[in-house]
Amino acid sequence: MDKPNILVVNDDGIEAPGIKALIEVAQEFGTLHVMAPDKPQSGQGHAITIHDPIWVNKVDHYPGIEAYECSGTPVDCVKIARHVYFEKVKFDLCVSGINHGSNAAINIIYSGTMSAAMEASMAGIPSIGFSLMNVAHDANFDGSKHYARKIIEFALSHKFQQANLLNVNIPDLPIEEIKGMRICKQGISGWEEEFIEAKDPRGKPYYWMAGHFVLNEESPNSDINALGNSYVSIVPSMYDLTSYPALDELQNLNSDE
Amino acid sequence: MDKPNILVVNDDGIEAPGIKALIEVAQEFGTLHVMAPDKPQSGQGHAITIHDPIWVNKVDHYPGIEAYECSGTPVDCVKIARHVYFEKVKFDLCVSGINHGSNAAINIIYSGTMSAAMEASMAGIPSIGFSLMNVAHDANFDGSKHYARKIIEFALSHKFQQANLLNVNIPDLPIEEIKGMRICKQGISGWEEEFIEAKDPRGKPYYWMAGHFVLNEESPNSDINALGNSYVSIVPSMYDLTSYPALDELQNLNSDE
Repeated sequence: MDKPNILVVNDDGIEAPGIKALIEVAQEFGTLHVMAPDKPQSGQGHAITIHDPIWVNKVDHYPGIEAYECSGTPVDCVKIARHVYFEKVKFDLCVSGINHGSNAAINIIYSGTMSAAMEASMAGIPSIGFSLMNVAHDANFDGSKHYARKIIEFALSHKFQQANLLNVNIPDLPIEEIKGMRICKQGISGWEEEFIEAKDPRGKPYYWMAGHFVLNEESPNSDINALGNSYVSIVPSMYDLTSYPALDELQNLNSDE
Repeated sequence: MDKPNILVVNDDGIEAPGIKALIEVAQEFGTLHVMAPDKPQSGQGHAITIHDPIWVNKVDHYPGIEAYECSGTPVDCVKIARHVYFEKVKFDLCVSGINHGSNAAINIIYSGTMSAAMEASMAGIPSIGFSLMNVAHDANFDGSKHYARKIIEFALSHKFQQANLLNVNIPDLPIEEIKGMRICKQGISGWEEEFIEAKDPRGKPYYWMAGHFVLNEESPNSDINALGNSYVSIVPSMYDLTSYPALDELQNLNSDE
């Protein structure tokens, strides 16, 4: 078998330590093709750039690896990688991250890291987003690298029918204190926002979004629970947002008229 | 019962004809509270503004209705409405749109309209996003208003357990040619992007994202199929992205070590 082609993206930007850690691991498994934002793009969700031009520059941060920085969002990165810069490459896998900070539970909805992985999965590419539960620039990625290696190996050696998008979160612990991996469902914990008001030099108020993560009561098989018990959480995810349990409840709304 | 409190948002901006149409209908049912972007924000997905300040201005576009324009994304609009400008209001419903253009099938993932509605649903507010299958500024919203009226009435008169986020798309047809409403699942059709290359005055290339919507083979109960048969499509949606069918497939990845 030829070496697998692996697309590498993130949302913290091309120079983030997290993507460096991911590249170190992923290059053990295949030929890497890197397209990452030229600046931090956290919280961009599935945003795309349609009212502005997109700029791309080749970078030489990673010797022997074709890598670009892109002015767009994480999802833009996946699209322009597939359609322009790596147009001829048939990708076997997309890896996104390693994000500096949690994408467990509700965070997945806002996450550029996971939205980039989802975008690739929508194009039929098995995709994995990795996130470390530590937002610091100088966070320790040793545990993340250890488990990213295991999960990438597993993904490349299995042909999944359903599990083509994985949301992986790694506890911020020394490797020896991480207890293993757990397959989980998305938790329900989320953010409680506050808006910090300030005034500009002309006295006009403006706001900064702030807030803190609030733990809700979680089921034992949630990602939040696994992480709280020192396990790596793996949530198979999907882009079909249909609420199947709700279909029945709405049947009265079916109408011909 | 007191008049219901209804939060009105969109992604096309406070002055779009679509939100005017939605306000006309929604004000028949309750007290409206409007927070909409100060410029078009299509394709913003679930993006939030965390690295920039957010500005809000009161506007008097809609007599008798408290309305604001916000410099942020559609999701920012919901957050700052809930936490600052309408902090004391207990919302009974959130309506988003009416979007100028389809949010059926894969479009929901990129949609600011639907992301705003999802954000409200994550806060426990029953939410409905409305979209007309016509991107034109001067599109005819008569059919959309007719069905928005029916669906808002239905939502306010039922206590849903599951169906607290609806993705409603309306065919671009005269009312009398719309056949009725269908409860659907999210279709699988989506965009095929192209990137248009141009050069700046210094000869450096840049790109515009373009593309066209490609119809895939859809199941009979998909939104795409309903719309193609001149029905309004209603997809109950959710923010739990867990792929439950994939959980079994990954059990080998559970590990203690």
